[in-house]
Amino acid sequence: MKLLLTISYLGTRYHGFQVQPNGITVQSTLQDAVERVFGYRCPVTGCSRTDSGVHANMFCCTVETCGAPNRVPTEKVAAALNSVLPDDIAVRDVCEKPDGFHPRYDVVSKEYVYLINNSPVKDPFSADRAYHYPVPLDTVRMNEAAAHLVGEHDFAAFCASGSSVKDTVRNIFSCSVNRDENTVVIRICGNGFLYNMVRIVTGTLIYVSEGKLSPEDIDGIILSRDRHRAGFTAPAHGLYLNRVSYN
Amino acid sequence: MKLLLTISYLGTRYHGFQVQPNGITVQSTLQDAVERVFGYRCPVTGCSRTDSGVHANMFCCTVETCGAPNRVPTEKVAAALNSVLPDDIAVRDVCEKPDGFHPRYDVVSKEYVYLINNSPVKDPFSADRAYHYPVPLDTVRMNEAAAHLVGEHDFAAFCASGSSVKDTVRNIFSCSVNRDENTVVIRICGNGFLYNMVRIVTGTLIYVSEGKLSPEDIDGIILSRDRHRAGFTAPAHGLYLNRVSYN
Repeated sequence: MKLLLTISYLGTRYHGFQVQPNGITVQSTLQDAVERVFGYRCPVTGCSRTDSGVHANMFCCTVETCGAPNRVPTEKVAAALNSVLPDDIAVRDVCEKPDGFHPRYDVVSKEYVYLINNSPVKDPFSADRAYHYPVPLDTVRMNEAAAHLVGEHDFAAFCASGSSVKDTVRNIFSCSVNRDENTVVIRICGNGFLYNMVRIVTGTLIYVSEGKLSPEDIDGIILSRDRHRAGFTAPAHGLYLNRVSYN
Repeated sequence: MKLLLTISYLGTRYHGFQVQPNGITVQSTLQDAVERVFGYRCPVTGCSRTDSGVHANMFCCTVETCGAPNRVPTEKVAAALNSVLPDDIAVRDVCEKPDGFHPRYDVVSKEYVYLINNSPVKDPFSADRAYHYPVPLDTVRMNEAAAHLVGEHDFAAFCASGSSVKDTVRNIFSCSVNRDENTVVIRICGNGFLYNMVRIVTGTLIYVSEGKLSPEDIDGIILSRDRHRAGFTAPAHGLYLNRVSYN
């Protein structure tokens, strides 16, 4: 049997989701918690790799019980795991899935949110939770540029160099930029994302605000497939995986 | 000359505001920053002592330049300090005050806020910033009780035992309890507060929600001057100094 866990976590302390040789990760912390609750080690598979310092309002992963007796009824697994997990990871929901279900390959859409603290003075309460950019951002111009990202495109220009992914075509369903007082929120939804894609999109939209690029330049950057023509990679700590959808 | 600094800080890493023999405090961190910026050590005096883990949306303190030449123009002090302070302390404003001004004795009112995460599941993003109380709180009943705290009273029953304060009379101007989705916000404003007073008020209002006390019991608790009759001391990490007012 497979259990699908919906979790949220503050990524600050973690070297991303995926198990790493050095440093604790969300996956290794979850595997330890599952072992304590179930009494045996189970494979935990995530819907995505997330980078060090990236957060998740919603992240999905499966726990394979591998036919071993599941001592904890499914409806009690969330509370049991929350009782042993650290405060920066919470299990929000647990449900059963057929063995054929895969938490990464079966995703139909994902939404990321990137938070920018756009106040002139830094904010102690968002230091590790939003990117502090003190110059006023032009969200109208950023939104114009964001519209050019929507659609099925080859996003190679928005992929970190060194990524081994072959197919760089992704379908972006929506991309918008909104201001909520001093916080600028970039919201992007698609069928999948390349390595560092949302952080490079953010850096590119900031370049558009700064006038280094025009909104119309986005089309040419996409066509070029050239990472150097897009903007900088915004830091990890402003990024949140916000929603994962399955059929 | 005295400079009045308006700051905000996330208290998680600090042993309160006031300098302590062991552990870093906000005051010692500020004194070090002032020394780096001004080139000499200056006394820093706060508007309040805050406990370990308590936060401040607004906190005021003075820096005495002691007649030494102030190399940094007043309007540039905030930016200079922010460039050397850690990310969890920010200087929001700096202004000049006469030598007779005292940041604690001249306060006419202070407002504290206490945040309770009242969701059934813990929230990774508020772990060190709100008290997680999973049972639904009855904010109508808590508000009824809060109204009984308003006015000039001897609040000895709401003062941590062991406090050396002689005069335990304080004037509470307002006290309210509101819900914002899963967050319950207790807001209390007065001319001064006793040691742990807001945290004991919070614990007492939670007892009222639980039915261990009735709203009308507050009057008797105040009259008793007996700490044992009030509620528990809610944890420090939900508490914020929110506003400090001077004449």
